[in-house]
Amino acid sequence: MTTEKSLIDSALRGWKSNVESADKLFVGLSPEQLEHEVAPGKNRLIYLWGHLAAVNDALLPLLGIGERLHPELDGMFISNPDKSVPLTVSEQSLKAAWQEINRKLYEGFSKFSASDWTKRHTAVSEKDFEREPHRNRFTVLLGRTAHLAYHVGQATLARPKA
Amino acid sequence: MTTEKSLIDSALRGWKSNVESADKLFVGLSPEQLEHEVAPGKNRLIYLWGHLAAVNDALLPLLGIGERLHPELDGMFISNPDKSVPLTVSEQSLKAAWQEINRKLYEGFSKFSASDWTKRHTAVSEKDFEREPHRNRFTVLLGRTAHLAYHVGQATLARPKA
Repeated sequence: MTTEKSLIDSALRGWKSNVESADKLFVGLSPEQLEHEVAPGKNRLIYLWGHLAAVNDALLPLLGIGERLHPELDGMFISNPDKSVPLTVSEQSLKAAWQEINRKLYEGFSKFSASDWTKRHTAVSEKDFEREPHRNRFTVLLGRTAHLAYHVGQATLARPKA
Repeated sequence: MTTEKSLIDSALRGWKSNVESADKLFVGLSPEQLEHEVAPGKNRLIYLWGHLAAVNDALLPLLGIGERLHPELDGMFISNPDKSVPLTVSEQSLKAAWQEINRKLYEGFSKFSASDWTKRHTAVSEKDFEREPHRNRFTVLLGRTAHLAYHVGQATLARPKA
């Protein structure tokens, strides 16, 4: 394996492992369990799950993989804080969206060459990218991996006892 | 910048940004504030900070950068759960250790070439590494970056109101 490929492989493994941790935490929880707050007065598990799904969904256009699959999640899970708007998504439909989004993302990730990963993401202009070449797809992938880990760490606090 | 260098640059930026998030959260808290639990019955902030310092310190030998600087942290922050052994470290000495460890690590990181990053870490044998080449320094760096993010996410829940 070339050095470039090995570096990408490490990053994709990191992404996958954090998605799997989120899977283990959220998938299979009952609607009641998903209502638990991670700490008193803080976000509920359902909110963190929806938030991760929505943020991952937004990666599709940001990395140039494709259109958003579930833009309807943003109002509930990104632009408004938890408990401020009614959730019109069931745990079943959220699970389906979550899995569909992550599948589509991973398909897209797998097609990128090393040099594709170092190209600019779609929210930075060509001109800005000349000055700031770190605003590329790979930086986004690593940042969103850390974003997954950040909220998985929180959600773990409310995990039901086995 | 070559593709390899660009990929490494993204990863080092990610590491740095998560260390800085932890800095912002922990450095400057009073001893009383560091006693706060992130959720009822869960780890205290002082424990998470010490835990991150100890885990980062262990990266020095794991990545072949040098000897441990603060192995004395392990008994308090890795091998025993929070509140099970008395802490013999003040917030001032923890802060000094934290900064010293992260400085030494970053110095070491900066000296690695792209191909150094894809070499095995010191806890995997040459033989195992032939079969599992992803057990390399870069995978460790990304994993520990996610580990920082995971606990920063938790610590944020107990951040004192500004």
